[in-house]
Amino acid sequence: MAKIAVILSGCGVYDGSEIYETTLTLLALDRLGAEAQCMAPNIEQVGVINHLTGNEMTQSRNVLVESARLARGDIIDLGEANPESYDGVIISGGFGAAKNLSDHAVEGVGMKINDRLISFVTAIHLARKPVGLISMATTLGPKLFGNKLFDNTLFEKGVLCTVGDDKTIASAINEMGGIHENCPANEVVVDERLLVVSTPAYMLAERISEAAEGIEKLVDEVLYMTK
Amino acid sequence: MAKIAVILSGCGVYDGSEIYETTLTLLALDRLGAEAQCMAPNIEQVGVINHLTGNEMTQSRNVLVESARLARGDIIDLGEANPESYDGVIISGGFGAAKNLSDHAVEGVGMKINDRLISFVTAIHLARKPVGLISMATTLGPKLFGNKLFDNTLFEKGVLCTVGDDKTIASAINEMGGIHENCPANEVVVDERLLVVSTPAYMLAERISEAAEGIEKLVDEVLYMTK
Repeated sequence: MAKIAVILSGCGVYDGSEIYETTLTLLALDRLGAEAQCMAPNIEQVGVINHLTGNEMTQSRNVLVESARLARGDIIDLGEANPESYDGVIISGGFGAAKNLSDHAVEGVGMKINDRLISFVTAIHLARKPVGLISMATTLGPKLFGNKLFDNTLFEKGVLCTVGDDKTIASAINEMGGIHENCPANEVVVDERLLVVSTPAYMLAERISEAAEGIEKLVDEVLYMTK
Repeated sequence: MAKIAVILSGCGVYDGSEIYETTLTLLALDRLGAEAQCMAPNIEQVGVINHLTGNEMTQSRNVLVESARLARGDIIDLGEANPESYDGVIISGGFGAAKNLSDHAVEGVGMKINDRLISFVTAIHLARKPVGLISMATTLGPKLFGNKLFDNTLFEKGVLCTVGDDKTIASAINEMGGIHENCPANEVVVDERLLVVSTPAYMLAERISEAAEGIEKLVDEVLYMTK
């Protein structure tokens, strides 16, 4: 049974992990016989958004504590997770990927990625285990697997990946060293060389069943690559 | 296309709606071609639980605002919802059903149900439209459809329903005037007389795919009854 790390960034599309994307990932993993372990960084959220109005709230919330809602309490601190215990990793989407896992929402292409996330995903990647990137988490791909961060022959070319057909984010991905490929919501883009799979999900999906179809294909590809 | 109201009570199993149950409900509705509209009461949450530790937090949160996370912002105030616009209603589970939609968690069988919820669900019910109750929301059934609240021939017998096999809650349901029937997580109990469908979901499920199977059957039954 493959054991897959699922990395979260809060609980809610505008300041954390996209809830449906995460749930659909866990459902697909379970249906395909894999074990999932949710994890998130133990840091303060960069802002709390009122999801009814879209306005900023004055509360402060912790990424690990809020992510625990999305994991029914079954979650560990990303900083204490051992990459050797996992056969692959999937990073859920939502603006938390661009606010809490990186500062892409503020810094754009000059963004930095959370140190713990870099070390965990890099260890997975260098062990030739697969990585799934959903929706907004795909913006992490170029710098996680790009030649601008590492001097390694594995990374001679940038990662092939998708967020759907958003021109602004596609340009940012290309500028950071990735290779963006347009893709419908119910499909995936596979980088067979780097073992990275991505799907647009709610960057493009208009219905939950569309996002589900793309995520099911992503999980299927990730699990296939663990073999 | 059937239009189904999905009633939420927050965002997180221990103080709101169970996240996976809600997502799986919305997925099943979409896959079966129905339209969903999420709604929640605009009231303060009865407590905020840290889902990492299980302890009470000192923050206060609003049920409608937190439910909006689980609806990607597409949610309306239950108090402003018109039951005539819907072909049926499904109430998601989680402890929010026993804390925010009723005071069952504190008052047990002497519990009261939120007035807005009673008027909305009663209107749906008296129009001979179906009602789905998931997991903890089933505890609302006896008093929503029971002879202790209404003097109506529709309600001569209590509602047939399930929360799985929990003896304490089953006894409470019977004591409140319902008729509890044991049921596995991947099945439903159907009261064909009152048009009420229930499934245990996370009152019993150990895997998300088990809960999904029961919820898919519940949605299928609810939609069948709208015809």
